[in-house]
Amino acid sequence: MKLYDFELAPNPRRVRMFLAEKGVEIPTVQVNVRQGEQFSAGFLKVNPYSVVPVLELDDGTCLGESVAICRYLESLYPHPPLMGRDAKDQAIVEMWNRRAEFEGMLAAGEAVRNALPLFVDRAIPGVSGGFPQIPALVERSKKRLARFFSLCDRQLADHAFFAGPQFTIADITAFVTVEFAKRAETAIPAECGNLARWHEKIAARASAKA
Amino acid sequence: MKLYDFELAPNPRRVRMFLAEKGVEIPTVQVNVRQGEQFSAGFLKVNPYSVVPVLELDDGTCLGESVAICRYLESLYPHPPLMGRDAKDQAIVEMWNRRAEFEGMLAAGEAVRNALPLFVDRAIPGVSGGFPQIPALVERSKKRLARFFSLCDRQLADHAFFAGPQFTIADITAFVTVEFAKRAETAIPAECGNLARWHEKIAARASAKA
Repeated sequence: MKLYDFELAPNPRRVRMFLAEKGVEIPTVQVNVRQGEQFSAGFLKVNPYSVVPVLELDDGTCLGESVAICRYLESLYPHPPLMGRDAKDQAIVEMWNRRAEFEGMLAAGEAVRNALPLFVDRAIPGVSGGFPQIPALVERSKKRLARFFSLCDRQLADHAFFAGPQFTIADITAFVTVEFAKRAETAIPAECGNLARWHEKIAARASAKA
Repeated sequence: MKLYDFELAPNPRRVRMFLAEKGVEIPTVQVNVRQGEQFSAGFLKVNPYSVVPVLELDDGTCLGESVAICRYLESLYPHPPLMGRDAKDQAIVEMWNRRAEFEGMLAAGEAVRNALPLFVDRAIPGVSGGFPQIPALVERSKKRLARFFSLCDRQLADHAFFAGPQFTIADITAFVTVEFAKRAETAIPAECGNLARWHEKIAARASAKA
């Protein structure tokens, strides 16, 4: 197997953290998405959607989408479980992971991609042009992030981790969201003490450096 | 179990189609999100994110997020499998389902919510106000949908269904996306013959009426 990765991008980081928590190392191929390598003819065969990460299996199958990759890795390396311990727990972890993605990660991505000069004319992922930035979206996304942080804070008031008593993929997604949001100059609000304490705890894990 | 549902909303429809394909019936509770019932104190206990669908289990656990609900239902009712038949197949189905969500469903949602008078000041799901519509986003989302349809068309050129030879949850998400996009006056482009043929085939299934 090999992982198509880009060190500075948030979604590959989720997969790297997941692997680090499993104690597994996989060879990586860096795809410099800042220099447009995701639009090369070679990479289009790996992923027609032109985004990283992608996990290429030994039989040549190319798996895109961070969570699909993690689910496959979970089946290969079940310990420690990061996606739930039984059917109900798996659904609960997936619910929180998806909330972190849809309310957190997507809002952070929207804020970053509609603000940074790097993404002029390609405000959505996987396109080389033709999708202009919309400045009004930046403020709306930051407000949305603030709402997400507040909902996180409430959940973390009586849960050690995002999806319950165990560290899971939902913590990875929420942690990478907080880190990514910094690029949009958005930090954990001062009143979100539970979220700040949780963030400190996750940042101290070895996997946070992956 | 009971399903908090709203007949006119696209995400509950995904769960209803999933159940229909399994041949399973579950009692539903209608939450009229057009009249703001998702913001009632009662429903906030069911889902602090104020969106439908939610599956309430007999032990009182409330599962939100359509795909988390479907995954739980898949574990209870494994036949026919709609989320993959082995670990690799499951990852492939999840990849395509997520592409349909992130590139299709979200773009359709963005187009609808930023255009329709119904959503003035609540252009993102789960909020009762304070998130104004951004008209420029409507055109960008429609262009994004056109790109998604074109990528679908390519995939369906040599696959009977979205994620391979079998009908799966990815077909449900893509089908509901096509149906939902109509509300943003966006149809399958004339040049996407494979997608049009696939759509006709899915529309003929009994579950399409769920």
